[in-house]
Amino acid sequence: MMLESIRSPEDIRAYDQKQIKTLCEEIRGEILSAVSKNGGHLASNLGMVEATVAMHRVFHSPADQFVFDVGHQCYAHKLLTGRYEGFSSLRTLGGISGFTNPTESEHDAFYEGHCGTSLSAALGLAAANAIQGKKDYVVAVVGDGAFTNGMIYEALNNCTQKRDLHLIFLLNDNEMSISKNVGAFPKHLDTMRTSREYYTFKHKVSKLLSRVPFLFRMGRKTKAFMKRQVLKYNLFESLGVDYIGPVDGNDVEKMEVVLEEAKRRHNVCVIHMVTKKGKGYAPAEQNSSLYHGVGAFSLEEGYKECKESFSEQFGEELAEAAKENPSICAITAAMCDGTGLNRFAEEFPDRFFDVGIAEEHAVTFAGGLAKKGFLPVFAVYSTFSQRIYDQVWHDVALQNLPLILCLDRSGFVPGDGITHQGIFDVPLFSAIPHAEIYSPETYAELRSSLHRAIERRGLTVIRYPKGAESPCEGLIDRGDYCATPDIEEEENVLVTYGRVTKRALAACKEAGFGLVKLVRIYPLPELPLKKAKRCYLLEEGYLQGGIMQKLAVRLEGEGKRCFLHAVEDFMQHASLDALYALVGMDEASLVKKLKNFAGKV
Amino acid sequence: MMLESIRSPEDIRAYDQKQIKTLCEEIRGEILSAVSKNGGHLASNLGMVEATVAMHRVFHSPADQFVFDVGHQCYAHKLLTGRYEGFSSLRTLGGISGFTNPTESEHDAFYEGHCGTSLSAALGLAAANAIQGKKDYVVAVVGDGAFTNGMIYEALNNCTQKRDLHLIFLLNDNEMSISKNVGAFPKHLDTMRTSREYYTFKHKVSKLLSRVPFLFRMGRKTKAFMKRQVLKYNLFESLGVDYIGPVDGNDVEKMEVVLEEAKRRHNVCVIHMVTKKGKGYAPAEQNSSLYHGVGAFSLEEGYKECKESFSEQFGEELAEAAKENPSICAITAAMCDGTGLNRFAEEFPDRFFDVGIAEEHAVTFAGGLAKKGFLPVFAVYSTFSQRIYDQVWHDVALQNLPLILCLDRSGFVPGDGITHQGIFDVPLFSAIPHAEIYSPETYAELRSSLHRAIERRGLTVIRYPKGAESPCEGLIDRGDYCATPDIEEEENVLVTYGRVTKRALAACKEAGFGLVKLVRIYPLPELPLKKAKRCYLLEEGYLQGGIMQKLAVRLEGEGKRCFLHAVEDFMQHASLDALYALVGMDEASLVKKLKNFAGKV
Repeated sequence: MMLESIRSPEDIRAYDQKQIKTLCEEIRGEILSAVSKNGGHLASNLGMVEATVAMHRVFHSPADQFVFDVGHQCYAHKLLTGRYEGFSSLRTLGGISGFTNPTESEHDAFYEGHCGTSLSAALGLAAANAIQGKKDYVVAVVGDGAFTNGMIYEALNNCTQKRDLHLIFLLNDNEMSISKNVGAFPKHLDTMRTSREYYTFKHKVSKLLSRVPFLFRMGRKTKAFMKRQVLKYNLFESLGVDYIGPVDGNDVEKMEVVLEEAKRRHNVCVIHMVTKKGKGYAPAEQNSSLYHGVGAFSLEEGYKECKESFSEQFGEELAEAAKENPSICAITAAMCDGTGLNRFAEEFPDRFFDVGIAEEHAVTFAGGLAKKGFLPVFAVYSTFSQRIYDQVWHDVALQNLPLILCLDRSGFVPGDGITHQGIFDVPLFSAIPHAEIYSPETYAELRSSLHRAIERRGLTVIRYPKGAESPCEGLIDRGDYCATPDIEEEENVLVTYGRVTKRALAACKEAGFGLVKLVRIYPLPELPLKKAKRCYLLEEGYLQGGIMQKLAVRLEGEGKRCFLHAVEDFMQHASLDALYALVGMDEASLVKKLKNFAGKV
Repeated sequence: MMLESIRSPEDIRAYDQKQIKTLCEEIRGEILSAVSKNGGHLASNLGMVEATVAMHRVFHSPADQFVFDVGHQCYAHKLLTGRYEGFSSLRTLGGISGFTNPTESEHDAFYEGHCGTSLSAALGLAAANAIQGKKDYVVAVVGDGAFTNGMIYEALNNCTQKRDLHLIFLLNDNEMSISKNVGAFPKHLDTMRTSREYYTFKHKVSKLLSRVPFLFRMGRKTKAFMKRQVLKYNLFESLGVDYIGPVDGNDVEKMEVVLEEAKRRHNVCVIHMVTKKGKGYAPAEQNSSLYHGVGAFSLEEGYKECKESFSEQFGEELAEAAKENPSICAITAAMCDGTGLNRFAEEFPDRFFDVGIAEEHAVTFAGGLAKKGFLPVFAVYSTFSQRIYDQVWHDVALQNLPLILCLDRSGFVPGDGITHQGIFDVPLFSAIPHAEIYSPETYAELRSSLHRAIERRGLTVIRYPKGAESPCEGLIDRGDYCATPDIEEEENVLVTYGRVTKRALAACKEAGFGLVKLVRIYPLPELPLKKAKRCYLLEEGYLQGGIMQKLAVRLEGEGKRCFLHAVEDFMQHASLDALYALVGMDEASLVKKLKNFAGKV
């Protein structure tokens, strides 16, 4: 293996084209091997192999810095920067992260996991270099999907500073974000992409215009204006940055040529490269959406999506509800598949909106729909909902409008890790007046929560974990919560909600505690804890501003002793069991803690 | 007065041009009169008079709907839609709101106060109309400053839906947002604005190209491509929406012509109008930045800015600190003046960044600077900081980088009201791991907080109110908090922080309570309340997720009785005294509540 012998990314500069080709094959093999074993992002990483190799041949990492938007496409970069050994530990506890991670390597400039941040971060790095008089380059790799996100434009608007910025944007155009891109920018890109005559065209126009005065009576000013406009016609150029492209991003030689060209420019430069998602693994080339993010699978048999999940159940139920209720609209931010909305999209195209990776717009747009009597349902991953606090506050709650926020991937998110944990949504949305929050543990609770939300027509958040239900048994349904039998008589009680309940219930049985599982977690329902003396409050979520802090204020006020057990820091990637163990929420740890709390040890 | 006789905006359709002129003068007079009396947004409202009149003559409100971005420019609209009487109550308790407010009139489609939301909301309204087969128009009025905000582009990307949208964007180009605009988009706009020959130009190019084949050997495909590009050259057209302009927005007749033209288009249409900020009041025309938002003033003498304020003290202290510490950078989101950064900008231009109304970008950009060893300080209004939770979480805290967030206008914000109250930042930022939050009541505390933050080099939030200090006296400084003498001996204690302390202390004296004023409010400092039995926890901020919930958990756990008194809902506009009274935080109410809590009544 050539990869074994690479000590520093500098090593690959000396390779000839044949060696480069072999290297790219090796990288693909490693990516396929690790992802098929541990799951991960496949299609986007396969597409970026040649471009990454070219980047490391033209630039000097870590002095020159790479920022990978969303981090979906950094595996080749990791393999070239000292992480070939150990790469099979991808996404496991203590192993290589599936996203960039500065604690892992000095070659990772930034944590990346949320979309659209790369240009801004890269601009900050480049501005810092400029202030310090450094000539190092910063390269941001940005998928075309990210151009449906507003932050990119905020950054572009700030690129024409007076400073001498050594900054290059590598626009990775694979005609996809996660699913097929939507909107005007992708269309614009399409025009650029199909206009291979771009250079020729510019040249011809320039020549043509220089001869015009002899032929037409055209004002000199008009001519200058026309020239300026014709020669600066695309969106990037209209915003004052240089544009080079399109170039084949799966061709190392060509990529090196344009990267060198970009280095020579005295302006911030966008390189428009076109890559093939899934390249080198036929099933992923044919269905890059399916192979965007996958669980473990057999390379021979291909990946088979596990259909049954909270997402799928949500999608089915919403489609059913929409049959009866013509006011229901569904919105996704480029996650139609991931959030289970495929059926809705097919059956109700008029009431379905994929707005691109534009969570903020999604919410305000929903506010507009709601104002006209519609009932919008926005399905989004918990971690990305961290972006919409202000819009939910300003354009929905303040306006007294209905919105159902369905937060998929709430609670622990194993493989994706630190940037994707869904443990902060409860503090956020419980800090918005008039919000209600549900956290179903079962499909049945998901369905009933959804129907309550539809009837309520207010701001309602429904949060549920990734994957399938695995509910505990033996609890009695009491409306807003479920509880073990005779909960009124218990002196020792554990209160919790959501997926962790199963582990908690097993521990309660062993430690002799009653258990209450909240379904509507906010506002807090009245609980039948008259005889309770000790309340163990367990939350698969962030402690500060969480539900259990609120509940503790109430229960302590009633003279009960409370113990709060929730998440107190960011959490890295690991298996679900490992994550629970890390925060002492595995059954064995819980038994110990409960017994300890009850004075039984 | 003509305004008196207007019963419905439809009435002004019949007016002749002379009457229209008189009407515009009357509107200006009313705006000047109300704003000089009660304070408010002056320059932007004066600039929008003619355009608003034209809108109401061409469209039928409320069937056709207007959405005013940020709401800074809706006074003329209010005067034409049934709010002429009572307009002198502008920004006072129970009076006319300074922003659009749907509870005030059916002619106000949406609450607007935060930037960049209008296109998204309007798109939602228009999509709803399309689904329902309605032909009503939605017009979004958007200042050019808003085009430095990402949401606008997220919405633009979604305008080319398959639906037949009756949607018009009125780009109000006054070459300013609040202060002078920054960045690439304003430059692009500048090109458009100065190109009055736009129509002529398009026509000429079209003719020219039709004759080209006889003169040059140019591929047919290239020609078609060139034509397409030349005729669709600006940013809007490249994103697939129509563009009309520029047009003089202070000319009612011309405005009516282009609005009618836009109605005829079968595509979403941007009208680029140029208006004069402050028009009709010479001092505001000359210094529109000063007259953006003002307090009460004499029309004859003009507005004089009250210099001494938390903002100004912060700006001075930061500039002083930057002299010693070359790593300090300052960032503003188009609020250089409002946040007191003028001196810093002048003295340290290399380390000063005005990024436009782009709070999200500001934070991630700060993360990039910090990664390279700089210490970024982002000064932003509390209410707008609701937008940056995810970026602070993802691009600063997660990366273990330093950032000082200075939240101006924290706590109650009297005149601006519901969209601008600074009472939600504490729940938000205390829900980010490793954050520290300071809430100084005095300039001295502001300074010491800032220096502690500079030394700490972590994520530190410093929040302070609008205006000048008015501190209470007689408290003893104990580092992280101040307290009345012998606080250790008190059985009845009130704990609070920030501006409300003065009122609280007066009440405590009368009710016989000791008082603790937190300066570092999070993480909670250790408090000397050993003998305390009753703790009254008072917070000028939102209850849920606030500091006092956290403190109550601790104090109740120690067996003390706690009473939480914080804000439990959105709050409208009123004077500061009226706002305190509304939530029972005026001295008299506090005395009653304290005595009641202590069982003394």
